[in-house]
Amino acid sequence: MSLTLQLLRRRGPELMGSRSSTKLLKSRRQRWEVKPSEMANNTLNPIRAIVDGMKLTPNPDKPMIALSIGDPTVFGNLPTDGSVLQAMKDAIDSQKYNGYAPSVGYLKSRQAVANFCSCPEAPLEAEDVILTSGCSQAIDLAISVLCNPGDNILVPCPGFSLYKTLAVSMGIKVKLYNLLPEKSWEVDLQHMESLIDERTSCIIVTNPSNPCGSVFTKEHLQKILKVASRHCVPILADEIYSDMVFPGCSCPSMASLSSDVPILSCGGLAKRWLVPGWRMGWILIHDRNNVFGSEIRQGLVKLSQRILGACSIVQGALESILNNTPQSFYNKTISFLKSNSEICFNELSTIPGLNPIMPSGAMYLMVGIDLEHFPDFKNDVDFTERLVTEQSVFCLPASAFEYPNFFRIVVTVPEEMMLEACSRIREFCQRHYRPCSRDSNDLDQ
Amino acid sequence: MSLTLQLLRRRGPELMGSRSSTKLLKSRRQRWEVKPSEMANNTLNPIRAIVDGMKLTPNPDKPMIALSIGDPTVFGNLPTDGSVLQAMKDAIDSQKYNGYAPSVGYLKSRQAVANFCSCPEAPLEAEDVILTSGCSQAIDLAISVLCNPGDNILVPCPGFSLYKTLAVSMGIKVKLYNLLPEKSWEVDLQHMESLIDERTSCIIVTNPSNPCGSVFTKEHLQKILKVASRHCVPILADEIYSDMVFPGCSCPSMASLSSDVPILSCGGLAKRWLVPGWRMGWILIHDRNNVFGSEIRQGLVKLSQRILGACSIVQGALESILNNTPQSFYNKTISFLKSNSEICFNELSTIPGLNPIMPSGAMYLMVGIDLEHFPDFKNDVDFTERLVTEQSVFCLPASAFEYPNFFRIVVTVPEEMMLEACSRIREFCQRHYRPCSRDSNDLDQ
Ligand SMILES: Cc1ncc(COP(=O)(O)O)c(C=O)c1O
Ligand SMILES: Cc1ncc(COP(=O)(O)O)c(C=O)c1O
Repeated sequence: MSLTLQLLRRRGPELMGSRSSTKLLKSRRQRWEVKPSEMANNTLNPIRAIVDGMKLTPNPDKPMIALSIGDPTVFGNLPTDGSVLQAMKDAIDSQKYNGYAPSVGYLKSRQAVANFCSCPEAPLEAEDVILTSGCSQAIDLAISVLCNPGDNILVPCPGFSLYKTLAVSMGIKVKLYNLLPEKSWEVDLQHMESLIDERTSCIIVTNPSNPCGSVFTKEHLQKILKVASRHCVPILADEIYSDMVFPGCSCPSMASLSSDVPILSCGGLAKRWLVPGWRMGWILIHDRNNVFGSEIRQGLVKLSQRILGACSIVQGALESILNNTPQSFYNKTISFLKSNSEICFNELSTIPGLNPIMPSGAMYLMVGIDLEHFPDFKNDVDFTERLVTEQSVFCLPASAFEYPNFFRIVVTVPEEMMLEACSRIREFCQRHYRPCSRDSNDLDQ
Repeated sequence: MSLTLQLLRRRGPELMGSRSSTKLLKSRRQRWEVKPSEMANNTLNPIRAIVDGMKLTPNPDKPMIALSIGDPTVFGNLPTDGSVLQAMKDAIDSQKYNGYAPSVGYLKSRQAVANFCSCPEAPLEAEDVILTSGCSQAIDLAISVLCNPGDNILVPCPGFSLYKTLAVSMGIKVKLYNLLPEKSWEVDLQHMESLIDERTSCIIVTNPSNPCGSVFTKEHLQKILKVASRHCVPILADEIYSDMVFPGCSCPSMASLSSDVPILSCGGLAKRWLVPGWRMGWILIHDRNNVFGSEIRQGLVKLSQRILGACSIVQGALESILNNTPQSFYNKTISFLKSNSEICFNELSTIPGLNPIMPSGAMYLMVGIDLEHFPDFKNDVDFTERLVTEQSVFCLPASAFEYPNFFRIVVTVPEEMMLEACSRIREFCQRHYRPCSRDSNDLDQ
């Protein structure tokens, strides 16, 4: 029996009427076959891909220490401020924030962000602010409004993996520009500039940086802006760690340094207020030269209507959170991060074979591995996997940031834990370190 | 001077070195030209498009009554339950929910949803639940995982506009299947079936319905499922109004009626718990015949990692919200909605030229306009616009749901307002009603 006949039989008599032949032509599917979309298949999470492929079996004799999680709340040593929690409870009690907020956020909350983030060189109005579900959605909307499939974006290497995850899932290409560890992770400007072509639709700059903890100087930021300006490419400034810089270091926003380059600055409450789960982010539209004009703004508004943004309760609390969190809270976090970074840097600096790079902000520290001195390991993934097996210390291999031969340490863990982790890393390295690499032996022969 | 030369000049000497010629070839953009992406341009919101095009100038002598806003919280007459607010404050006080939740939600919260939504015919485990930022993101993820650009989805007409907004922005085609007002908005099954072709990647069924307030019988749902089963097309069941049905009417979930059709059921807290701003939604994966298999599940997990989902505080409160909200709260809302619907239906039924259709659930009521009796108005947009001008009553023209000659009334407004609105609508209709339409006059000639 032919397939068509089978199909007719299976469908039964109700379709055998006058219209059945046209229907037959159209409805060809005869068995269940539901596959995920290309977009789902192309949504790649390099951290998961790498970590899920690792054998992470800690040494049963040593309690696990995870220096891998970019969530400052996991150890309980860095609670948010009481005033932040109170602002939330007040928002709930008011019963004013249970309904739908406008898709770009309550005007009052946008105004509060505008006031908080304004500076004389880069003033902001409420209409320049779009509230989002975390900085992640801010980045998603910013990429979505600026880029078409087939375009490319410039992304730092090493860099936060979400940029690539989002871009690739939308058919946008990613070109990695190098950061230079020997120059405190400054951008290789020549390399960045060489990557720009006529389909480059934005340059992403992460400052302060995840995973490097680096903070660019004003002069360096100006040089980046010059590149963007020369080639007329807008900037997506990921400034989620803004103001999380160690004392003595300043960190101007990109927008405060340029009036011609249009900038979408992405930020949020996640890091500085230590509440990443609350999903409160924003886009600041800086466009003093009127390049974006009304079109990009309207595009952002339209995109914000797809799924709406941040939780209305957090939006309701936002003004109070921004205005009433005491300076001492921020200072406390920063001095903790600085002190822990110094402990970690000082410890690891004296370990042969490791090259930690001292951060100036954010909550990360990158460590280079002299792999020629560790012949037991193929690469950073191998190195960090074995560090778990032997010492129950987990650091994220920087392959997850497209930067092999490094690993990233999160410096938000309690001080004792940091010290213990460092001493275990020392033991591990001492055990595996070989003063003369095989390669140089080979050369000697 | 040639453009290339101008470009060289403008760039200055630092690029005149050895690599400048390659750079010149690549970087062609010589002036600022930043345009929104196709996706942004294709993100169309029909409600905004129609409402923004209307001249909504209320009659200064009558206070405005908006029967247009699908937000049950705006008038303050339908507060959420105290236990729901308390659950949120407890979640805040616990300080356990400030960090990142897994991208699909806390296991405990997913388990709570699974327990709450399970029934013997369609049991759910925690792993069948994905928490999202509102039902909107649930729909977004469901469409994103099932459909590729060029595919088509079947969408009810009249229907909630977000489906089309999302689909079109992703290059997915939308085919509208008719609902039949004369059959309490049941699906025209023949029409639905005739639209299916080999690129149909899902059928969206909204039950109870926005904008109709209709609730399908078990038998009708079974017929829809048969169509899906015959053509092997999965169903996206938008069940955000589930259990919001008037007494005497039952509303089984689609999943409880089929074991072969794979179903992604989208829901959330927005409507039943009267907190739409909190952005708490979910996808329930029903796949007892193992059609989706692990691939669609993994696809959903991957897509959830793009921007992460719901606010962790609401997630933390979810178990308590689902388990501790008293039945009396739900009952109170429903009897209010029913009573207001009856008031509205009874009033409008006696107005010549209007054909209200009594709802059985949700919070909407559709009203047909006999336009041949209202020669003053071109269409539903015109009619509702003038209703604002003359009577300061705003109802959404159903063109916003691709269904001209109807308008939608939201029945969540306070009773006095509903009564006042109805009497103004009566006055308006009486003023403009013409017993014999022009058309029939034309025919008589
Ligand atoms: C550089 C950077 N940008 C954005 C984000 C995402 O922030 P959010 O949690 O607000 O989405 C992170 C989170 O780790 C980050 O490190
Ligand atoms: C049928 C339908 N589905 C989904 C939604 C969106 O729900 P949420 O606010 O949870 O995103 C709505 C909102 O009005 C709706 O009417």
